[in-house]
Amino acid sequence: MSNIRHALNVKREEDFAKWYQEVISAADLAEESGVRGCMVIKPWGYGIWERIQRLMDDRIKQAGVQNTYFPIFIPLANFEREAAHVEGFAKEMAVVTHHRLIADGKGGLIPDPEAKLEEPLVVRPTSETIIGDAMSRWVQSWRDLPLMLNQWANVVRWEMRTRMFLRTSEFLWQEGHTAHATREDALEETHRALEMYRACVEEDLALPVIAGEKPENERFPGADETWSIEAMMQDGKALQAGTSHYLGTNFAQAANIQYQDREGTQQHCHTTSWGTSTRLVGGLVMTHGDDDGLRVPPRVAPHQVIILPILRDKPEDDALLAYCEDLRAGLAKHQALGEPVRVLLDKMPGKASAKRWDWVRKGAPIILEVGPRDMENGKVAAIRRDTLWNTESGKLATEFVSRDVFVSGIGQLLEDIQDSLFREASDRRDANITRGVTEWKDVVQFYKSNGKYPGWVEVQWSKPTGSALEKVVEQLKAEKLTIRNVPRGSEPADGVCIFTGEKAVERILVARAY
Amino acid sequence: MSNIRHALNVKREEDFAKWYQEVISAADLAEESGVRGCMVIKPWGYGIWERIQRLMDDRIKQAGVQNTYFPIFIPLANFEREAAHVEGFAKEMAVVTHHRLIADGKGGLIPDPEAKLEEPLVVRPTSETIIGDAMSRWVQSWRDLPLMLNQWANVVRWEMRTRMFLRTSEFLWQEGHTAHATREDALEETHRALEMYRACVEEDLALPVIAGEKPENERFPGADETWSIEAMMQDGKALQAGTSHYLGTNFAQAANIQYQDREGTQQHCHTTSWGTSTRLVGGLVMTHGDDDGLRVPPRVAPHQVIILPILRDKPEDDALLAYCEDLRAGLAKHQALGEPVRVLLDKMPGKASAKRWDWVRKGAPIILEVGPRDMENGKVAAIRRDTLWNTESGKLATEFVSRDVFVSGIGQLLEDIQDSLFREASDRRDANITRGVTEWKDVVQFYKSNGKYPGWVEVQWSKPTGSALEKVVEQLKAEKLTIRNVPRGSEPADGVCIFTGEKAVERILVARAY
Repeated sequence: MSNIRHALNVKREEDFAKWYQEVISAADLAEESGVRGCMVIKPWGYGIWERIQRLMDDRIKQAGVQNTYFPIFIPLANFEREAAHVEGFAKEMAVVTHHRLIADGKGGLIPDPEAKLEEPLVVRPTSETIIGDAMSRWVQSWRDLPLMLNQWANVVRWEMRTRMFLRTSEFLWQEGHTAHATREDALEETHRALEMYRACVEEDLALPVIAGEKPENERFPGADETWSIEAMMQDGKALQAGTSHYLGTNFAQAANIQYQDREGTQQHCHTTSWGTSTRLVGGLVMTHGDDDGLRVPPRVAPHQVIILPILRDKPEDDALLAYCEDLRAGLAKHQALGEPVRVLLDKMPGKASAKRWDWVRKGAPIILEVGPRDMENGKVAAIRRDTLWNTESGKLATEFVSRDVFVSGIGQLLEDIQDSLFREASDRRDANITRGVTEWKDVVQFYKSNGKYPGWVEVQWSKPTGSALEKVVEQLKAEKLTIRNVPRGSEPADGVCIFTGEKAVERILVARAY
Repeated sequence: MSNIRHALNVKREEDFAKWYQEVISAADLAEESGVRGCMVIKPWGYGIWERIQRLMDDRIKQAGVQNTYFPIFIPLANFEREAAHVEGFAKEMAVVTHHRLIADGKGGLIPDPEAKLEEPLVVRPTSETIIGDAMSRWVQSWRDLPLMLNQWANVVRWEMRTRMFLRTSEFLWQEGHTAHATREDALEETHRALEMYRACVEEDLALPVIAGEKPENERFPGADETWSIEAMMQDGKALQAGTSHYLGTNFAQAANIQYQDREGTQQHCHTTSWGTSTRLVGGLVMTHGDDDGLRVPPRVAPHQVIILPILRDKPEDDALLAYCEDLRAGLAKHQALGEPVRVLLDKMPGKASAKRWDWVRKGAPIILEVGPRDMENGKVAAIRRDTLWNTESGKLATEFVSRDVFVSGIGQLLEDIQDSLFREASDRRDANITRGVTEWKDVVQFYKSNGKYPGWVEVQWSKPTGSALEKVVEQLKAEKLTIRNVPRGSEPADGVCIFTGEKAVERILVARAY
């Protein structure tokens, strides 16, 4: 396969981090903005996020959760309350202190000292406290429960080291916040949200994930339980792709969210919160990208089929364009994966071959090239992005098919691509989880000898807490390892704890992570 | 009609401003957040905004404009550049100066003096300058043009006096920004966006508007031309519901947006920008609201039909609920206004009559009440929100119709309601524009004697500029009047200027405004 000339300058196996940046740039997903830690999400990257949003939002609404919008600014007092209430409270946030700019007399502008806010405002890092305030107003009786809210918003956390989509100072996300009468109801919602994330991320983004509970040390500050979905990237590291928290009555006590039960007694609500973010786009790149750029699964591709007319700047172009427009309309009438097929006829100026490679790097699922001869013969030259190369010849695996056959088979073809990307990723993931390791020294040895593609290791443990857990965390940290989660539905433990030597109570996944 | 007992405590004709606040609250659209000038948009209000977004976004994408996302923080330097470049630059904005909170030692938190930003960041009041920076990177050659971008985002302008939806410190909007090779192309886009706004606001929100050019004094700072759509509220005031700006090469020069033309020469782009915001929801309230709350036009109603089962906390409830669920599913299979009908079966606890009035105040287009007897008789009791009362009897104009007839006619019924709301508003608007006034004293007298419902006046003017225009603006201001716009396609002028006595060149609309 050495005769294949890939579209990117960096290969995954050479330098994964550099390759990642290269894909972000070559697929035209995003770029640095010049504002510290903030990125510009470009049309193709934002189009993917919009698709994720729409599919996730349908699932959110389906569950009866209602969208709302809360202010971006949160009063300092809310954080003072939370800081008193919650250990491990993070304080790196953007603080607004002034409400006016004024000329500095030297041609520049400065914050107007006369316009200093009495109380600084914080740009929301998350909306738990301000939504908690609203819940305390909106919930009076058991009749108001459950109260299930969601918000699509931008949030800001002042990050010291940023990486596009994975960790940026500003990012886009959705945050679900729900209040319930009982622990059981709140736990049910915690699991419903987790399962919704699993389904959306696996079915729509084609990212296989493992859902499970986070250990105590990885819980969201203030949560009684934190659950996550974990995806394996192509460098064998884990990416936390979504979290769902059962908050007990902790936040309800801090924000005074109470209801009168059927017997007339005041009770604190049990609350949950759950979130996913633009980080998912980073996970998509690190799972489906290859040495030619990104491969976007059809369900989240802004355009699923690109039609590239081979134009020659001649009068004949008009007939070819009309033919392509007709092809576009024919395809758009079909359904794939439950929606009308999304087709783009790319009429932008430029050479067809250059445009073809642009779309290869962007990862459009199917690229159709149509020249005058194809038009005459009623054929199309189809490139399937997930199987780009003929590995024997080292050439593009372009298929020449009759237009009618292609059009009538489009739904099935896009489904195949969606399935195949998922299967490829889950086969790789499954092949790189090592089970049955019972000695700590073997874990250490495993990661020493599998430096480039470490994968994950499943071990059994006794679920220590407090200082015993801290010791385990330190032991893992020395090898750059973390506990990802306790996979839902895994086999019961039957051995001894790899850390403490005590009887094991459950199985955990250990991995390097983003 | 004095025997009608309306659902609100305040009537429009008694106190329009108070009535407006009452509708916002009674229809559960939004509430004060406790953060200065910022509101919480509640599920019903946000649902309406989401519908507006989706319908507008479809139109935006249809035109080939691409969505993107730019950082919320803008460096001070961008504003310094703009302040030097643009007169009338507004400086009331939220300024971020610190990136960390720290304990003050007295149980509170303060901005950490150690974490002061070297250069303060501004929370975007609009994204012209940061998008201009990106355009200067993205545009190189004529082949890159037109570049048409849009962003859905939150923006912040530090407003001293705020009113929900109409003027809040933080609001949600979309901002389109486009770059073109020629003046003609940019002007065409300016008008395309204006026409898109007119169509969306009239067809989707059922708000009749007058599209036209703003006079020089009302232009966006830095624009060569500003166009607007203006809607008339029920108090006869004007609401600017959307603007579209032709920016000439002014912003391109400031941000260095240049392209190489086909002859190899560097040229500055001609740019446009256009925006609409959550203000539209305020316009919806002030146009379609009545003394019973809001009336939401079907196209933008989150739920178009509400089914209220009359439950009795008895075993028979199960059969009724099953019947209602069947009714819901039957309605949802139908199409109205080009989309599947949106039906909610409201199973929340509570008395059906109380819930009916909640939905009346919220303005759901159709409310169906279904009791055990209706189930037996195969009937529904239908309330049409736009014609709520039987004015003769003073009772609700509930219609008892056979279920089958109702279900099969749902598409037509929702279309009728959409049309009827638009017609009602445009008839009122047309009846309240006074034409043919030629003397300034008559304008003054007109507004003196029509205090409660002033309406608009069309006059002719000579289109003065500079200090002559300033004089006109002052003269109008003394009567609390402004020039709204020069209506597109109005009759040519044929008289003398009402201000200067010179020969008139065009007709303008004069009004009090939000």
